[in-house]
Amino acid sequence: MSEEKIIDGMQYGFVPNRHLWYFEYYTPGNCGIFMKMNKHLYSAQSKYQRIDIFETDFFGRVFSLDGITMTTEKDDFFYHEMLVHVPMFMHPNPKKVLVIGGGDGGSVREVLKHKSVEKVIMCEIDEMVVEAAKKYLPVTASKLDDPRVELVFEDGSQFVRNFKNEFDVIIIDSTDPTAGEGGHLFTEDFYKACFDALKENGTLSAESEDWLYDGAWLRLAYSRIKKVFPVTKLYLGFMPTYPSGMWGYTFASKGIDPIKDFDPEKVKNFGEELKYYNEEIHKAAFALPTFLKKELENL
Amino acid sequence: MSEEKIIDGMQYGFVPNRHLWYFEYYTPGNCGIFMKMNKHLYSAQSKYQRIDIFETDFFGRVFSLDGITMTTEKDDFFYHEMLVHVPMFMHPNPKKVLVIGGGDGGSVREVLKHKSVEKVIMCEIDEMVVEAAKKYLPVTASKLDDPRVELVFEDGSQFVRNFKNEFDVIIIDSTDPTAGEGGHLFTEDFYKACFDALKENGTLSAESEDWLYDGAWLRLAYSRIKKVFPVTKLYLGFMPTYPSGMWGYTFASKGIDPIKDFDPEKVKNFGEELKYYNEEIHKAAFALPTFLKKELENL
Amino acid sequence: MSEEKIIDGMQYGFVPNRHLWYFEYYTPGNCGIFMKMNKHLYSAQSKYQRIDIFETDFFGRVFSLDGITMTTEKDDFFYHEMLVHVPMFMHPNPKKVLVIGGGDGGSVREVLKHKSVEKVIMCEIDEMVVEAAKKYLPVTASKLDDPRVELVFEDGSQFVRNFKNEFDVIIIDSTDPTAGEGGHLFTEDFYKACFDALKENGTLSAESEDWLYDGAWLRLAYSRIKKVFPVTKLYLGFMPTYPSGMWGYTFASKGIDPIKDFDPEKVKNFGEELKYYNEEIHKAAFALPTFLKKELENL
Amino acid sequence: MSEEKIIDGMQYGFVPNRHLWYFEYYTPGNCGIFMKMNKHLYSAQSKYQRIDIFETDFFGRVFSLDGITMTTEKDDFFYHEMLVHVPMFMHPNPKKVLVIGGGDGGSVREVLKHKSVEKVIMCEIDEMVVEAAKKYLPVTASKLDDPRVELVFEDGSQFVRNFKNEFDVIIIDSTDPTAGEGGHLFTEDFYKACFDALKENGTLSAESEDWLYDGAWLRLAYSRIKKVFPVTKLYLGFMPTYPSGMWGYTFASKGIDPIKDFDPEKVKNFGEELKYYNEEIHKAAFALPTFLKKELENL
Repeated sequence: MSEEKIIDGMQYGFVPNRHLWYFEYYTPGNCGIFMKMNKHLYSAQSKYQRIDIFETDFFGRVFSLDGITMTTEKDDFFYHEMLVHVPMFMHPNPKKVLVIGGGDGGSVREVLKHKSVEKVIMCEIDEMVVEAAKKYLPVTASKLDDPRVELVFEDGSQFVRNFKNEFDVIIIDSTDPTAGEGGHLFTEDFYKACFDALKENGTLSAESEDWLYDGAWLRLAYSRIKKVFPVTKLYLGFMPTYPSGMWGYTFASKGIDPIKDFDPEKVKNFGEELKYYNEEIHKAAFALPTFLKKELENL
Repeated sequence: MSEEKIIDGMQYGFVPNRHLWYFEYYTPGNCGIFMKMNKHLYSAQSKYQRIDIFETDFFGRVFSLDGITMTTEKDDFFYHEMLVHVPMFMHPNPKKVLVIGGGDGGSVREVLKHKSVEKVIMCEIDEMVVEAAKKYLPVTASKLDDPRVELVFEDGSQFVRNFKNEFDVIIIDSTDPTAGEGGHLFTEDFYKACFDALKENGTLSAESEDWLYDGAWLRLAYSRIKKVFPVTKLYLGFMPTYPSGMWGYTFASKGIDPIKDFDPEKVKNFGEELKYYNEEIHKAAFALPTFLKKELENL
Repeated sequence: MSEEKIIDGMQYGFVPNRHLWYFEYYTPGNCGIFMKMNKHLYSAQSKYQRIDIFETDFFGRVFSLDGITMTTEKDDFFYHEMLVHVPMFMHPNPKKVLVIGGGDGGSVREVLKHKSVEKVIMCEIDEMVVEAAKKYLPVTASKLDDPRVELVFEDGSQFVRNFKNEFDVIIIDSTDPTAGEGGHLFTEDFYKACFDALKENGTLSAESEDWLYDGAWLRLAYSRIKKVFPVTKLYLGFMPTYPSGMWGYTFASKGIDPIKDFDPEKVKNFGEELKYYNEEIHKAAFALPTFLKKELENL
Repeated sequence: MSEEKIIDGMQYGFVPNRHLWYFEYYTPGNCGIFMKMNKHLYSAQSKYQRIDIFETDFFGRVFSLDGITMTTEKDDFFYHEMLVHVPMFMHPNPKKVLVIGGGDGGSVREVLKHKSVEKVIMCEIDEMVVEAAKKYLPVTASKLDDPRVELVFEDGSQFVRNFKNEFDVIIIDSTDPTAGEGGHLFTEDFYKACFDALKENGTLSAESEDWLYDGAWLRLAYSRIKKVFPVTKLYLGFMPTYPSGMWGYTFASKGIDPIKDFDPEKVKNFGEELKYYNEEIHKAAFALPTFLKKELENL
């Protein structure tokens, strides 16, 4: 980490490139994660948010919106596999999928591992995010040009209202409610529109923030989805570069139960490479710590 | 967070107490967690390590050794419940328990929730840690003066060698291998001595670092324990203020299997308050992400 | 700076004590100075302000009010010598001196190097600052127990109104106008009261902030003093641990001119050790950069 | 500084763009300056050094080599005026000037304010610095395309050896001895070659680091130049964004004395706009604090 220089008989402790840092402040504003940036690859203010992509030694490329980490090459699969494969494996035969948000492309990449899928619409409000991801995040955005993918650059909370009984799976891969326009994707109205846009066997997942720093949002997302869907279950996954590392997701459906109706054999025989998600993780994700179970029971 | 002052007609954006910060650098040294400190309560260099305890708004009191976070009042129960209750509930009737390390007292506090326990020896190398914890961490150290507790201030890796067939449960609550003298508690010799000190039905748990930043240590701890114990299983728990939030623990025994031999009814009927651990969490903790399963299979 | 540890065959780059940092944010709030703290010696919230004293490797002990650096053992003499000796050497025979603020004792220490002085009243609003300085800042507070010193714990802006034609020299050693109650010491009323409390040959100095980050306060202090005193001159000194390193002081008198009436021989023959101030520095301090001369001409 | 967002009834303290920071570590490595970056404009690793240019709210554009601040739009004139105008005004009629280093163009800009100048050779080792400065630092690099300027991309410590009795003024505008190849510009051999390349009336200035953090280099530069030149004098200037704000420069000549031979009228009648330097500043800059005078006397 440190390199010594001896110049003209004087020894110098020299620490190169120690000068550029990224600080993500967690909600209360007095704690967070810091990362050294090697190189700032992209930085822009879109109509909706500040976009930054930078290189690090440890995490590879890091993508941030309004100073909130969205993905790193190191651990993006933790998040995208948990968000996508839970509702995808619960659906008996997912053909048509709607991804709301998800501009970096990681959710689409995971959806397309399911061979039954014929079409994915990704509705991302911010076209600049998608352009930047295609250019600078090839690992995450690898499938955005797949012919089965249709990209729509609109407000997902409005776009979903165009459909009734249309999708097999809806994946809400929003930014933080406090970044950009993320808040629109946390309203009851929006969840109701998702319900209507889903077919009878439809399943849904929604990123639901973390308990420690954003517990209010987690409870809000869960309780609002629960008002709309007959089956609503919170599940958890590790996600190292997100606040607290304990990430919340909400599964919802019109009847399918993510535990009772789960077929581990489907996962075992999947054929495609998954790095995080497996049949044991699926079940384990719905086991909640006692404090969290109690909080949800009271909602 | 910010308070405005208007003095003599000039307006000043004034942000009080923004000046004292704690930075924990994770292993690669170019990332980590930061926390604002409200007040530094205790700071000392013991024979073994640098000890700091400080107050924060969000985490309550935080305890750090050599700049590595050991506990915060906010989430100490995540860690201590997972470290302690897994081996404790797996033992049919734990009476005598050895805690190695654990100077803050959190493990002892959890052990004593089990009514069968008659004696806990806590062997902590650094007496100054225990003194500081008693004074400044009342939530964590609450049971260190319980009459069933015997405190020993010695190197646990040596102390355990004094016993053969003595303990029902051994809990290795070490600091990081890189802080203070933590490294001694990660050797095969030491694990062998633990095996010898355990009775036939004995169970053991060992904190085993995190995969993301300290994966080499996690694999080392697991593989060395596996050489010594017939049953060795890694399990995971969320731990927000530890690196990556995905904390590794190793369970080991002379025969008891943490899944097959687990009796969920014992947990359900426990009677004592547990905030994190429950019977579903117990089983879920042994479900490992695919990448980690594969790594362990190759060891 | 970095120490390697090899534990059990694994090499670890280990950087001890890298975890406690002090950040002073300069006025615009998006830049400042950072220092590693070795040990936090004192931390308290008085009635007026947050007080912190900590040890560093490089600066020795550092004293901060509301997160603003007041003194460091490394460079306190830069500031205190410039604040004190300019008005002290300009007075023909200073016997009675009033220090307003200056709770760390550095100004009193410098005043008492002048053998003519019979009495110094130090009026510091915050008694806790003085107590902390006596205990933790022996280098700075070394003369606070001298029999010629009278300590008064009152608001200096009120206290000075008790005197007419009383002092030979008044030294305004305030905190920042934005810290604690510092703002009271930047009003025209207060400067008028200082004028009245000074004898005919009286001289005054006032710390006047820095131009780069706090130029508005520098201009305010200078222009208000100028309304009250017939002779008013800004002077500058280096001060490494204050914002920008270019510190402003205002000299004022009822007639004595700090250049024309200056006698370099007095300084040369002073006899007491001065580390920063000398007869050439005295004159040089009144040479202002062109941009600053122009700003002051327009006030 | 903070902007509130209310989304769906939940209020959020939102601090946009707080995530990208620049930290310059001063020599001992445990203190320094920090600045929030708005936008990273340029980042590259040249053959010699890491180059970064970024935008800030407060300082405008900032240019850094190996994490060491070279110029900011806010205060570049402090440094460049003091480095250039002292030797330029001391020469009776400067026609041919050599700038060694100075890739940002600030020294050339100041040199060309002197109407007598017919030719400036700027010898900068790193062509990428000049290209970046031309593109991103228009304020500093404004005169690099002037027809009187010849740009040479070579090691200045070698290049100067090509000349004997050639230049009227030489300006050593090096980077830090610890950044890039700066160390070559602090050797006695190099200073001897500068002496030889200067004409009889020649004058020279060399940036000489700061006393507080880099005092060893300051003393080294001064003492080596003194071995070579009959007239050698250290002078000081404020420089807010350089370490300590107290910047050292060495003036040297074959006989001209920067105080005795100084003609203030030349400065008064200069005609070109100078923002920092003036005839009083010229003289004041050679007044050294007592501690520094003593250090230099002992060299």
